[in-house]
Amino acid sequence: MVITIGREFGSGGRELGRRLADYLQIAYYDKEIISEIAKRTALSEEYVHNVVENHPYPLFPITIGRSFNPIGNPMFQITQSVYAEQTQIIKEMAAKSDCVIVGRCADYILREQKPWRVFVFADIDARIERCHRRAPQGEVLTDKEMKQKINSIDKGRAKYYEFFTGSKWGDRKNYDYLVNTTNIRIRDFVPHFAHLFREDS
Amino acid sequence: MVITIGREFGSGGRELGRRLADYLQIAYYDKEIISEIAKRTALSEEYVHNVVENHPYPLFPITIGRSFNPIGNPMFQITQSVYAEQTQIIKEMAAKSDCVIVGRCADYILREQKPWRVFVFADIDARIERCHRRAPQGEVLTDKEMKQKINSIDKGRAKYYEFFTGSKWGDRKNYDYLVNTTNIRIRDFVPHFAHLFREDS
Repeated sequence: MVITIGREFGSGGRELGRRLADYLQIAYYDKEIISEIAKRTALSEEYVHNVVENHPYPLFPITIGRSFNPIGNPMFQITQSVYAEQTQIIKEMAAKSDCVIVGRCADYILREQKPWRVFVFADIDARIERCHRRAPQGEVLTDKEMKQKINSIDKGRAKYYEFFTGSKWGDRKNYDYLVNTTNIRIRDFVPHFAHLFREDS
Repeated sequence: MVITIGREFGSGGRELGRRLADYLQIAYYDKEIISEIAKRTALSEEYVHNVVENHPYPLFPITIGRSFNPIGNPMFQITQSVYAEQTQIIKEMAAKSDCVIVGRCADYILREQKPWRVFVFADIDARIERCHRRAPQGEVLTDKEMKQKINSIDKGRAKYYEFFTGSKWGDRKNYDYLVNTTNIRIRDFVPHFAHLFREDS
């Protein structure tokens, strides 16, 4: 059993994934993937995080002219090697044991073994409130600034997902279950939600 | 507890709704709504069905010129009275007892009492296959014809929903749970899914 979780920033998707893995007593992977990529590529974790969350390399057509050859561009090569390691690591994790994997296009990377694909989202007001509650000490943002931050992070995720998979991020077609966390307490929800992943359902 | 179910044609949303109501032992409303509208408006059931599924009246701006006044148009008035009865009946049903209501913009009509809002969908191939399996005797359509039929019905539903609610039909923001039935057996799924509607979740 492999469960992949895509999520809007601030929707509680990571908490849901962690609690689900705990409840089902299976492995949980999230930031571990970035650490592992960093280790294997000798890039810093921060750098890898930037690549996989924000996709810094501009989109460009596959058919390329003479004047601009991304193959020879070091930035392009780094991005490509991060992609390659990410794919490799996620496949290894899924092969090792049952697990929950948050983010990283795992739904797409593992598509051949048909994981359960979950997408977690919430109304923007609920996400702003959640982000305020969980803000690192010293971060003081207005609601408006928080909303901008959330939208900007999600824009990066959408762009990365679309570049990597060719599909629209958050489009219901790409998931088995989509969960709106606006009106639920994730802690109470998870034991019920876990039923959907039983063998016979 | 009120559960509203929107659904793509052929996704098994109606079966899911019926089984869920059975399992939870609560009322189930679907075609009953149309019968009741027909009774109250003295229109035929077939006619009402056409209004609520296909929305025959063309969209028009609210601010209207002199030359085209829909208020005086009998088609417009009939559509309006169907809308009004639909709203009234669905509110009565929800007030009477716990229930599952399929279609008819019930999620929107009941928005103030915060029902559980479910949307059921599936891949087009799964829907074509399901529709073939459930076709009325004598209906022999090719896959291509079935696909056209499905898309045309869903187009009508989307148009109706958008006209009535001002929101996009099937947009995840309008629902609490979205369920992809492509890879599940609805009969086996429902007992697990029912857990999500327990009081404490």
